[in-house]
Amino acid sequence: MIYLDNSATTQTRKEVADYVAKYSVESFFNPSAVYAPAIKVHNDLDMARQRLMKLLNANDGKIIFTGSATEANNLVLNGLARKNKKILVSNGEHPSIYETAKNLLNSGFKVEFIALNKDGSVSLDDLKAKMSTDVGLVSVIHVSNETGAINNVKEISSIVKNINKDCLVHYDGVQAFGKLKVDVFNSGIDLYTMSSHKIHGPKGVAALYLNSQINLKPHILGGGQEFGLRSGTENPAGILGFVMAAELMYQNFEIKREHIKSLKEHFINSLEKSGLKYIINGNENCIDNILSISFLGVKGEVLLHSLEKHEIYVSTGSACSSKHVGNRVLSACGLNNKQMEGNIRFSFSEFNTVEEIDTTINALKQEIDNLIG
Amino acid sequence: MIYLDNSATTQTRKEVADYVAKYSVESFFNPSAVYAPAIKVHNDLDMARQRLMKLLNANDGKIIFTGSATEANNLVLNGLARKNKKILVSNGEHPSIYETAKNLLNSGFKVEFIALNKDGSVSLDDLKAKMSTDVGLVSVIHVSNETGAINNVKEISSIVKNINKDCLVHYDGVQAFGKLKVDVFNSGIDLYTMSSHKIHGPKGVAALYLNSQINLKPHILGGGQEFGLRSGTENPAGILGFVMAAELMYQNFEIKREHIKSLKEHFINSLEKSGLKYIINGNENCIDNILSISFLGVKGEVLLHSLEKHEIYVSTGSACSSKHVGNRVLSACGLNNKQMEGNIRFSFSEFNTVEEIDTTINALKQEIDNLIG
Repeated sequence: MIYLDNSATTQTRKEVADYVAKYSVESFFNPSAVYAPAIKVHNDLDMARQRLMKLLNANDGKIIFTGSATEANNLVLNGLARKNKKILVSNGEHPSIYETAKNLLNSGFKVEFIALNKDGSVSLDDLKAKMSTDVGLVSVIHVSNETGAINNVKEISSIVKNINKDCLVHYDGVQAFGKLKVDVFNSGIDLYTMSSHKIHGPKGVAALYLNSQINLKPHILGGGQEFGLRSGTENPAGILGFVMAAELMYQNFEIKREHIKSLKEHFINSLEKSGLKYIINGNENCIDNILSISFLGVKGEVLLHSLEKHEIYVSTGSACSSKHVGNRVLSACGLNNKQMEGNIRFSFSEFNTVEEIDTTINALKQEIDNLIG
Repeated sequence: MIYLDNSATTQTRKEVADYVAKYSVESFFNPSAVYAPAIKVHNDLDMARQRLMKLLNANDGKIIFTGSATEANNLVLNGLARKNKKILVSNGEHPSIYETAKNLLNSGFKVEFIALNKDGSVSLDDLKAKMSTDVGLVSVIHVSNETGAINNVKEISSIVKNINKDCLVHYDGVQAFGKLKVDVFNSGIDLYTMSSHKIHGPKGVAALYLNSQINLKPHILGGGQEFGLRSGTENPAGILGFVMAAELMYQNFEIKREHIKSLKEHFINSLEKSGLKYIINGNENCIDNILSISFLGVKGEVLLHSLEKHEIYVSTGSACSSKHVGNRVLSACGLNNKQMEGNIRFSFSEFNTVEEIDTTINALKQEIDNLIG
C-alpha cells in the first residue's frame, strides 16, 4: 500500500495507540471525581494542556479539548458570534467553518467572505477591503486543505488588529499544526484549532487554544467540564495520545520536513519528465506535504480508482468534500471545470519514501495513457 | 483497590482497548474517502449501527455516533426545539439535558420541568398534569444517575402519545443501556442516548438512536458526516470498541444482573446488621447497580476521603455534580440538608465481588465510628 492521502487522515502511530490502550485500562477514572487516582487523571489533563501550549509557544491562555476539530471550529464561530459585530471568514475555509458561517448568516448575523488568491491563500487585499471596526471575529484556515497554501498568520493578524485592535483572530490549524511551527505569542493568534488524527494521533480528539481575554459562550452544555466551555466526560487516554503524537511531530522536526520537501520536489521533477499534461494548483507558498494537481483530459475520480488498483491511495480533494459535486475552494481559486475535474490531491507524511513516489509516477503514466488512449 | 463508582465511569475492558488500538493502526482510513480500504471502514461503521439497533430491538430508524452522551443530549434538545412547541424535561435530568433546557428557556423557548417522586423517578401525575397537545418533545432520564430509580419508559411514552401522538419522546439511557434490556420497538421510544464509557467501552464515544420519522436539526455543522446530523471525522476504532463493549454487556446478561443484584442485597443486609444510622435513597424500583445512601451525622465528602484511605472509591453523587454545592436531583427527591450532606453513591459493576462489599462495610463501620467519635 502507498498511502498518499495523509491530509484526509493519518495512520495512528502504534506506540500512541498502545499508550492510549494502556492508559484507558489503567487510568480509567473520571477526572471529575475527587479521590486521588481521579485527581491524577485530572492533573494529567492539565499537564497535557501545558504541553500543547508549549508546542504553540503560548505563554498564557488555555487549551480546551473537544471531540473533533469540527466541533472546535463550531464552538469558535457560535461562541463568539454577536448580533452587533461582523464575522469575516474566507472562501477557502473547511466546511466546519464555512457551513457554520453560512448558518449564522441565515440566522441574522453579519458574515462576509474573503476571496482567495489563485494558489488558495486568502487575498490580503480583499481582507483589507472588508476589514472594519465593526468586525469582531476573523477566522482563516492556516493551511488550505485543498491546495496546501500557507496563510501568513502574522500578517493577517497585523492587518486585522491595525484596523480593530479588539477584533479576535482565529486560525483553523488542522492542516498546519505538527507540520509548521506555530507561534501563538509572536503571531497575534487569539484562537487556534488543532486535530489529533491529522498528526498520527487517535481519532475523536481535537483541541482549541484560546487566549486568556476571550469570553466564549459554550456550544455544548452539561457538567461544566473544560472550564465550563465544553461539557461531557473527558477522554483522557485519547487526549494524552493526541499530545504524545503532537510532541512526536515536533521531534527531529527539520529533518522530517526536509524529507517531505524532497518527496514533493522529486514528485514534481519526475512529473516534468513524464510527458503528462497537468497543472499544479499551488506554488512555492504551499506546504510541502500537500500537492494538488489537475491532470488534463482525465477525470480525477476515474484516475483515483485506477491508482487504487496499484494500492495507491489519493483523493480528489479533501475527504470532507469528496462526496459533494464540484469543489468550492478550487473554484474560488479560479480553476475552470476541466481543471477541477482532473484534480488529484497527493498528501505526504514522514513515512512516505522516494521509492513510493517513483511507483506512483509510473502508475500515473500507465493509467493516464490507458485512460486517454 | 475497590472501585464502587461505576456510574461515574467504568474501567475499559482490556480486550476492547486492545481491539481499539489494533483497529486504529490497521484501519485508520477516513470513512469519507472513496477507495476500498476506506469504504471498508465506512461499512464497519454501518454494521456498528446495525449491531446497536439490534441491542435496542429497533427495527427502523438510525444510529448517530457522537463524541459524548452530553453532545447527543444537546443535539436532541437543540435539534428538536421549536418556538411554537413546548418541551418537558424532568427535575431528575443529567446536567446535559437540564442545563440545555434552561438555556432554551432563557432563549425564549417554552420549557417546563416535571417533578420527581421520593425515589428519584419522574412523577407520572405531574407528567399527566403538564402534558398537552402543545408539547412537542418530552425528555426523561431512563435510570437516575443519582438514586438509580428506573423510569417506566413504556408507560411514559404511552401517557405522552395518548395526549399528543405527534409528540416525540427521548430517553437519556446513559445509566440504563447495557444494564437493562432496552426495547425501542415495544416501548414507544423515539430517541435514545447511549454512552460507551459507562459500559466498559472507550471514552469519547456515544450514540443517539432516532426513529425514521424525525426531522432533527444538526448541532455541529461541517462535512456532513452521520447523515448530515453530526459533522466531524468519525472515530471508527472508538465506535467499534463501544459497540463491542455493548455486546459484551448483554452476553450472559441475566447471570451478571443476578450477581450485581446479590451484591446490592448483601450490601443492604450487612448495613442492617452494622448498627450504623443511614437512609437508603431509593427503593425496589431502583436499578441494582446503584445504591444511594445518606449516612446520618457525617459529611459525605469526609466519609468519601476516609474510604479513600482504604483504596475504596465512591462518590457523593454523580461525578457531573461532584464539584457543585448541593445536589439538585436529591433535593428534588425531597431529601433534607442533613440527608444530602451525608449522601454517598455506591455503584457496582459485574467485576465487583462479595468480598469487596464486606471490606467496604467494615471500612464504613470503622470510619463512621471514628468520625462520630
